[in-house]
Amino acid sequence: MRHLLVIGIGAGDPDQLTIEAVKALGRLDLAILVEKGDEKRELTDLRRHMLREYAPRARVVTVSDPERDRTARAYPNAVDQWRRQRGEAFRDLIRDELRENQIGGFLVWGDPALFDSTIGSLEEIDGVDFSYAVIPGISSVSALAARHRIGLNRVGRAVQITTGRRLAAHGIPDGVDDLVVMLDARNAYQQIDDDVDIYWGAYLGTPDEILVRGKLTDTKDDIDGVRAAARTRKGWIMDTYLLRRRDQ
Amino acid sequence: MRHLLVIGIGAGDPDQLTIEAVKALGRLDLAILVEKGDEKRELTDLRRHMLREYAPRARVVTVSDPERDRTARAYPNAVDQWRRQRGEAFRDLIRDELRENQIGGFLVWGDPALFDSTIGSLEEIDGVDFSYAVIPGISSVSALAARHRIGLNRVGRAVQITTGRRLAAHGIPDGVDDLVVMLDARNAYQQIDDDVDIYWGAYLGTPDEILVRGKLTDTKDDIDGVRAAARTRKGWIMDTYLLRRRDQ
Repeated sequence: MRHLLVIGIGAGDPDQLTIEAVKALGRLDLAILVEKGDEKRELTDLRRHMLREYAPRARVVTVSDPERDRTARAYPNAVDQWRRQRGEAFRDLIRDELRENQIGGFLVWGDPALFDSTIGSLEEIDGVDFSYAVIPGISSVSALAARHRIGLNRVGRAVQITTGRRLAAHGIPDGVDDLVVMLDARNAYQQIDDDVDIYWGAYLGTPDEILVRGKLTDTKDDIDGVRAAARTRKGWIMDTYLLRRRDQ
Repeated sequence: MRHLLVIGIGAGDPDQLTIEAVKALGRLDLAILVEKGDEKRELTDLRRHMLREYAPRARVVTVSDPERDRTARAYPNAVDQWRRQRGEAFRDLIRDELRENQIGGFLVWGDPALFDSTIGSLEEIDGVDFSYAVIPGISSVSALAARHRIGLNRVGRAVQITTGRRLAAHGIPDGVDDLVVMLDARNAYQQIDDDVDIYWGAYLGTPDEILVRGKLTDTKDDIDGVRAAARTRKGWIMDTYLLRRRDQ
């Protein structure tokens, strides 16, 4: 039987690796790096650095992420189709690159449980036998809260984690006082006029980390500016934020 | 200046410590263990084990958590008052036990950002100067998802994290398809008749770990039984679960 490990590697700081993840990396015969077309050479380099440090035995293969139709109309069908294609690419790779009784590993940014498609893609795979396990990681959400030194929820209240797309479409849902937003490519916070504070962070855990916090209506133009400047300087941005209703 | 570290130590498996947490433990002059009255000798022992392993220099002090009024009527004012008392206990401890330029650390189960009061208590402290930093940890929520090999959210959708108390009071909120429930002392899932699956886990990451999953209406009595038996056997239980609406 082939065995796979889906390894959460934290939000950007290699020291966010858990001992469990370090041990898992050390067991790998094969390390699988999924590379997006537009990506982020720095992120690939960071994963390769982790592999040199912790997975000296592993052969490294890269697989290109299939392109995805990102128009709003196509969503989420496009995601399903994209995940199927990804599953097929993973299947071929497992069949061709991993021998019986070998261990392969996916290095996943953050936590594989939050807004990551690796588990979903593996569940789609037909035609090759394998077992797999998931190793949790520090998500950018946890990193954001830690760096701002805040709780995600307030006492006795709930917290919701959503996407920029949903924030743009629905605003802050009724009954939700604390809302974490991920994958906001289009500054959805700009459209929010509620009386909320924002706790924003980019490149969390890396030397480029940027943190901004304040009343949203006073701060959102600053964040737009910081965001645009950072994106220009580095060529990419990865950020997340918490919107917190101010107590009346 | 005194310095404090609020260190997330994971959900129960010592291997869930991050490298960052291990390094932090190694820097501690003083390790602060908050002990609840009714607790859970095993959990205290597990933290002491981590300290022997990773914080050999640290002097260990324990502080008893003040009692809290847990009646529903008193909540959340009781929590505020309890947190203030806790802040005062922490203040005395920092002032009396930690010298200038020393580093003290709180070992917090899971992630200090999720349903933990340490940060809130530190923010209440008056009358002693200190700085502090937070080190994120693997929450029981991440551990639950990893062990069940599921995402917390589905593609393009949100996930909410709430308490058993809120679930009992409000049910599954409209528009929420994936709901993680923590701190459910009273089997609130029993009252839910929605068409949902449950992914339940107890003692996550420990040798006693128990996982149950299935359609809620078919499974909830089983979980009641497993829960009651485990609580009797061990004297305490720590569990969490995800409720996931079934797609129509």
